[in-house]
Amino acid sequence: MIIDDPAVKAEVEAAFRAYETALTTNDVPTLEALFRDDPLTIRYGIGENLYGMDAIRAFRRARSPVGLERTLAQTQITTYGRDFATAMTLFARASAPGKIGRQSQTWARFPEGWRVVAAHVSLIDAQ
Amino acid sequence: MIIDDPAVKAEVEAAFRAYETALTTNDVPTLEALFRDDPLTIRYGIGENLYGMDAIRAFRRARSPVGLERTLAQTQITTYGRDFATAMTLFARASAPGKIGRQSQTWARFPEGWRVVAAHVSLIDAQ
Repeated sequence: MIIDDPAVKAEVEAAFRAYETALTTNDVPTLEALFRDDPLTIRYGIGENLYGMDAIRAFRRARSPVGLERTLAQTQITTYGRDFATAMTLFARASAPGKIGRQSQTWARFPEGWRVVAAHVSLIDAQ
Repeated sequence: MIIDDPAVKAEVEAAFRAYETALTTNDVPTLEALFRDDPLTIRYGIGENLYGMDAIRAFRRARSPVGLERTLAQTQITTYGRDFATAMTLFARASAPGKIGRQSQTWARFPEGWRVVAAHVSLIDAQ
């Protein structure tokens, strides 16, 4: 298994950037398109546990678009083989002073493209 | 890509159970052995962000072994192809009343066996 093949990594980095832009602009159709549309997809959010794409969609569509801007830090994308990757990043939001966000995503390649199959977002106190 | 191939899933379920037993008994050598020994391995813990196996090892070895018992809920292991899997679970601890824990792990198969390459653990208030 080749880890961090440059061509594969470039693909995942592009998908990750597209997700980040969609998140901070509350572009819900793109956010939804980048998660795998399947009951097996899971997203643990800052305050909710969402099992299946139906639950994830319902959350996105009800979410306030205010205060989503954020700054990323220590972002690390790692690809394993041609079809799998992890994307881990810390983030800070002006709307959450004194807190550090952590976002982890597992990406897989499907015929329709790279999709998030599992995600977890949480906030902790800054050290 | 075959999702949830029964033979592959059985392997990951066994690795997941071994990890859970090691965690609740504070069997540090087994916990360490089940994470990939690599600078790319990341673990976001309940209160710390650990980049690389050296940081993860240092945390494990300093951790209090008290109050690690927990009850799992809504555990979902999903395998993607033969070499990749996600393991997502909620948990409750008597030492953290009123809180719901979330643990996500990304597992990959290496020549030496299945290993966690990325993990994220967080606590939120029970709904």
